[in-house]
Amino acid sequence: MNKRALISVTNKEGIVDFGRELVKLGYEIVSTGNTYKMLTESGVEAIKIDEVTKFPEILNGRVKTLNPYIHGGILFERDKCEHIETIEKHNISPIDIVVVNLYDFEGSLKKDEDHAKMIENIDIGGPTIIRAASKNYKDVTVIVDPNDYDTIIDKIKNNSLSEQDRLNLAFKAFSITARYDSLISTYFANSLGEKYPQYLNLTFEKQYELRYGENPHQKACYYKDSFSQNSILDFEKLHGKELSFNNINDLNGCLNIMSEFKDEEYVTAVAVKHTNPCGVAIGENSCEAFKKCYESAPVSIFGGIVGINSTVDENTAKMMHDIFLEIIVAYDYTDKALEILTQKKNVRILKIDDLNKSSRGYDLKYLDGKLLAQDENDKLLDKFEVITENKPNDREIEDMKFGMKIVKNMKSNGIAVVKDGKTIALGPGQTSRIWALENSINNNSDKDFEGATLASDAFFPFDDCVKFAAKYGIKNIIQPGGSRNDGDSIKACDELGISMVFTGVRHFKH
Amino acid sequence: MNKRALISVTNKEGIVDFGRELVKLGYEIVSTGNTYKMLTESGVEAIKIDEVTKFPEILNGRVKTLNPYIHGGILFERDKCEHIETIEKHNISPIDIVVVNLYDFEGSLKKDEDHAKMIENIDIGGPTIIRAASKNYKDVTVIVDPNDYDTIIDKIKNNSLSEQDRLNLAFKAFSITARYDSLISTYFANSLGEKYPQYLNLTFEKQYELRYGENPHQKACYYKDSFSQNSILDFEKLHGKELSFNNINDLNGCLNIMSEFKDEEYVTAVAVKHTNPCGVAIGENSCEAFKKCYESAPVSIFGGIVGINSTVDENTAKMMHDIFLEIIVAYDYTDKALEILTQKKNVRILKIDDLNKSSRGYDLKYLDGKLLAQDENDKLLDKFEVITENKPNDREIEDMKFGMKIVKNMKSNGIAVVKDGKTIALGPGQTSRIWALENSINNNSDKDFEGATLASDAFFPFDDCVKFAAKYGIKNIIQPGGSRNDGDSIKACDELGISMVFTGVRHFKH
Repeated sequence: MNKRALISVTNKEGIVDFGRELVKLGYEIVSTGNTYKMLTESGVEAIKIDEVTKFPEILNGRVKTLNPYIHGGILFERDKCEHIETIEKHNISPIDIVVVNLYDFEGSLKKDEDHAKMIENIDIGGPTIIRAASKNYKDVTVIVDPNDYDTIIDKIKNNSLSEQDRLNLAFKAFSITARYDSLISTYFANSLGEKYPQYLNLTFEKQYELRYGENPHQKACYYKDSFSQNSILDFEKLHGKELSFNNINDLNGCLNIMSEFKDEEYVTAVAVKHTNPCGVAIGENSCEAFKKCYESAPVSIFGGIVGINSTVDENTAKMMHDIFLEIIVAYDYTDKALEILTQKKNVRILKIDDLNKSSRGYDLKYLDGKLLAQDENDKLLDKFEVITENKPNDREIEDMKFGMKIVKNMKSNGIAVVKDGKTIALGPGQTSRIWALENSINNNSDKDFEGATLASDAFFPFDDCVKFAAKYGIKNIIQPGGSRNDGDSIKACDELGISMVFTGVRHFKH
Repeated sequence: MNKRALISVTNKEGIVDFGRELVKLGYEIVSTGNTYKMLTESGVEAIKIDEVTKFPEILNGRVKTLNPYIHGGILFERDKCEHIETIEKHNISPIDIVVVNLYDFEGSLKKDEDHAKMIENIDIGGPTIIRAASKNYKDVTVIVDPNDYDTIIDKIKNNSLSEQDRLNLAFKAFSITARYDSLISTYFANSLGEKYPQYLNLTFEKQYELRYGENPHQKACYYKDSFSQNSILDFEKLHGKELSFNNINDLNGCLNIMSEFKDEEYVTAVAVKHTNPCGVAIGENSCEAFKKCYESAPVSIFGGIVGINSTVDENTAKMMHDIFLEIIVAYDYTDKALEILTQKKNVRILKIDDLNKSSRGYDLKYLDGKLLAQDENDKLLDKFEVITENKPNDREIEDMKFGMKIVKNMKSNGIAVVKDGKTIALGPGQTSRIWALENSINNNSDKDFEGATLASDAFFPFDDCVKFAAKYGIKNIIQPGGSRNDGDSIKACDELGISMVFTGVRHFKH
């Protein structure tokens, strides 16, 4: 009996050559619709699917391969006499190779096509053939990726196509059908506003393998969420080697802080270490913003990431060049600036178009076989309520909002002390609030805190923070409020001549 | 023409009653294999699928519904004359309701069945019918969940089954086929050792909706990884209300530290705040361990989580009862202990069977439309190399390992100062190493550091940490090593009478 290959592809890249090679190797080709047309017009002999199914293609191609003559030919087990007898009794011809790729649902998704078009682009027959062939991988070869055509032909020629090869192909096939339905189910979920459905199906596509993870002994890989059309981490790399695991994680921290400032008229410079901000400043231009940012963290900035939501010019580049930075990210660079910065081989120079986040709106935490899924934190303040006798002036109000944008993006408990659009002291990731404040001030004992503003990511449990802050001349405090001891903190502020604002929005981040 | 429902289910719960109701409502039922048998034996009239397909069920049920008489009946568009003509021409009867659930691949997974059984339990026909009906949801009702039977019957009776209802059902159906293939592709990936494949498909099942996320303005939901057969977060709740987002996140931190000690003979008590340890201690029994743990963090432990890898007895419970704790987790509790602890309404009392992690072995970080995937950090030391003139004694060696287990599970940069199996000072999450050390010591200025041991999650960039530690009487240091300035730190240790050990394994954690 002749060997048979079933070919039905949406992506027709390389299919004619592949078909021709199969024919040379003695295969009969069974094909459908446009694939059949293309093959035969190119001189590759093929049998029309109708001849096999004894039934016409109907309903604009909705039903063509969903037929026992096809699926019997794929699914019978070659080592079972009973199956062979059945096949012979019903005149079903074996199908040994299946070459199928699917209607381009993902393409429709990217093009944001209308609902009817999306629905029409849900392939029914294709996944069925792929899944049937994969289930029977012991006997059937399933090919879903044009990049595999050459290898397969070589292996058939050498008679070296093994069960292991077919298993690998079946895995690839199932990973594609899983991905396909994951995209479809997410499309439906989005249409229905079901952000947290009973079954949350996520599918990711490899961007590149990382040299290692957070530490050298951990293997790692970088993926993109296949459903997401964009990410705040979309950048163009102008210079330097590939980003490491920790680079990407830190960059995410940096860009998230920058995104808090994306609609402001001034320029913001952000320095990040270990995902936490170590210095943030605003200025009239990138030079001023970076200079202030550097002054705020002259030691910690070493080996860090710096982001600027503007164009880096020559003077800024000169300052940057003098310190060791892992990554510089900006909207753009002048030619002169690039010339200076690219003198260092290892620094990564990244260019971003915008600071728009993914449309997914998720913040997901994977915890050893579990998942905490939540909305991203896309709010800054619910209110801006001055609750003390002292009132902040305009400059101080600006500093309050500036400080809250920073502390929102620090690990909790977090404290930010700022002045004139520049961080003076940052205290992230502490297990006690007063420690976060004490540490931030102690670590910056050379700084002048007179007239500074303090921002806290959560309420003060006691009045100790107010009293400690007052000792250093801090004059303004912004915090969510909501402690049962708020009264004590307000009283302390009034006694110590401090203005305090409640925002109503806590910003825990872990 | 009569309305038709196709019924083919693996999970037969409620199917007879549902079928009977459909018949009463004037539906003809088409059915397969065992479902047909069960329905007809229960007196529910049904048409055998062969009569519709004009083809027998073959290959042990591998091919029964993969047939144009079935899929034509499902997939034709009821508002297209051309489609109606086709259906009539080929004598295809419309199928208006599809009731299908799938071969129990997930059950086989849980039972860890052999490969042949797993493969046989990959359903081909079922997902195809479900997907076809879902694609054509405008005209066809797809039911995949026995819990929906009653509602559907009611809606058909009231004539209120709407297109919106059918869209919701189609979404549910696609979320199940996506999940099904995600599990299959992960099963294949695991068989092939493909931990980081080109397409990473993850599927999660809702555990419960959370009141809110990290902050009250963020919606949130708690899921389990459907592929994972266990999790370190598997617990039995003996008392208290449901865990919040931050509870679960903190509990994860607590259990991960506890798991570092699971093979030790002594008992370990761990207190956690904001995912970071605030106190850890070992003891002969839970009472001693908890007492030491409390002494190490008498302030920070307030509102925290405490874990003990032993049985909580009466005396321990009394001490715990005196402070405000959000969660207590332990292997077990004596009756007396439970009696005491459950007097507080709000404390959650959790019981765990073991500290085994998920077999998945992943640490995943979702970053705005991207995913950083890495191996979990399952190593402590590569070596234990004393590189100073001073050598640690046995007790000090134990403290070194104890300290490293803790610092491994703190946010970076992290420093732990310990003595006699008890933490004295912990400095997590800093953007500079010397700050982590300075802060940890300054925050605990009332403590005695004489003869203590310092553990660092990464190398010392300079010798400043050694010199600072020496000032407080710290006598032993354990760290990965690997800085180009290691020589300076070793020299400082030798001059200051400190022993230092290099482990070769960095433990960044962000």
